[in-house]
Amino acid sequence: MITSTSNRRVKWVRALQAHRRDRWKERCYLLEGSRLALEVIHAGIPVELVFHTERFKAKEAGLVNGLARLGGEIQTVSELVMAACSNTESPSGIMVVVPFPELEIPEKLTLSLVVDGMADPGNLGTLLRTAWAVGVEAVFLTEGCVDPFNPKVVRAASGAHFYLPLLPIDYYEIEERLRGLELWLAESRAGIAYNEVDWLRPSALIIGSEVHGVRDELGSLVQRRVHIPMKDGVESLNAAIAASVILFEIVRQREAK
Amino acid sequence: MITSTSNRRVKWVRALQAHRRDRWKERCYLLEGSRLALEVIHAGIPVELVFHTERFKAKEAGLVNGLARLGGEIQTVSELVMAACSNTESPSGIMVVVPFPELEIPEKLTLSLVVDGMADPGNLGTLLRTAWAVGVEAVFLTEGCVDPFNPKVVRAASGAHFYLPLLPIDYYEIEERLRGLELWLAESRAGIAYNEVDWLRPSALIIGSEVHGVRDELGSLVQRRVHIPMKDGVESLNAAIAASVILFEIVRQREAK
Repeated sequence: MITSTSNRRVKWVRALQAHRRDRWKERCYLLEGSRLALEVIHAGIPVELVFHTERFKAKEAGLVNGLARLGGEIQTVSELVMAACSNTESPSGIMVVVPFPELEIPEKLTLSLVVDGMADPGNLGTLLRTAWAVGVEAVFLTEGCVDPFNPKVVRAASGAHFYLPLLPIDYYEIEERLRGLELWLAESRAGIAYNEVDWLRPSALIIGSEVHGVRDELGSLVQRRVHIPMKDGVESLNAAIAASVILFEIVRQREAK
Repeated sequence: MITSTSNRRVKWVRALQAHRRDRWKERCYLLEGSRLALEVIHAGIPVELVFHTERFKAKEAGLVNGLARLGGEIQTVSELVMAACSNTESPSGIMVVVPFPELEIPEKLTLSLVVDGMADPGNLGTLLRTAWAVGVEAVFLTEGCVDPFNPKVVRAASGAHFYLPLLPIDYYEIEERLRGLELWLAESRAGIAYNEVDWLRPSALIIGSEVHGVRDELGSLVQRRVHIPMKDGVESLNAAIAASVILFEIVRQREAK
């Protein structure tokens, strides 16, 4: 059992927990909790390392054994070590390190999402979960976004990371990489109502951060604007909510076709 | 200028910040930041007490004067006192105490929302913001919900509290208080697809917490189930997202009529 926080493995996990830089250098990220661990088994993700407490294994031996079958190193750690590695106030007792996903993107995209400068991890994670649920084929993230492999994003996304391609993108690449898609920028009270757009055409929805909207570079790049009608006096919706409402309208139109 | 955290006013504000009990006893709650302060002025809410730093007033004198015209006590406080009262890591420098809203509910409800056991303040606040945007007439909250006047809920709701009636409700009251409304319980993969329900009838949408769904008492009380179709493998959506998608569908049907 690992009982020291100066253990090499523990330091590695803590670095992956804390720093975007380490995650991207190692091309690995962390999953915490039974629910995500179960999703790992369902998805058959190769596992690098599992930390679990004795208490966790006593309750959930099947889950630990299922993870063991995925090939990675399994380590029992003390409650103290688990608390030091964990991102939550009451650690569940299970933590899994997995490599960055390598997911293929369809050659011809029909529905993608561009997220610009979304800094709140809960918001981004929730949005990725919705994007997965509606069948978005790829999510492009601009530089100002919180790291999609940040543990809080991963938790809120509830397994979306295993299926939904997540790609960094620079403004200057957008036209090139989204060629063939109609680009629609979501903006309060601008352009067309979201349910009057013809979403049967291959489309990309672009959503900004709540506070700043999208940045000017992006605003001038994209001509089409879409909004969600709201009651007078309401300034805007939460960005993840707005994107989700539009994404479900896209699916609704496409399924009704 | 108030510089001591043992000042009576400061203690009062900190109690309102920290404790649901104090908020409900005093029937007052806190708003923090320029954006909400501006909404207070727009809405013409009577103000009990304003705390601002000197630095804030130097930048935003108009806002402080606008609040002063609403009648409450205005106090300059030190940065230290503001930090002690604030709920955020970098306090904006303005904090407003307002009384609980007394909003009238239409005698005949046509659209209401019941939230059951939603413990996450960001989620509840975001959902209230959506409910306001779509014109929900009243939101009923069961006991297990986070306090709707919790400062984090208030922040995420972005002003919804000034317009949207928020009411505690017990399970045994639901039938009585929602009489005349069709009750629809949102539940993953149960009942009818959300866009196949006839939402032209007066309706109440009931949404549970993400983790536990709705409690059994409620589940047995309500017969109608509504779900949002999702891609295979996706277990559920975030509860605020799910409710928002359904609420906007309700509005879409009603506006199209």
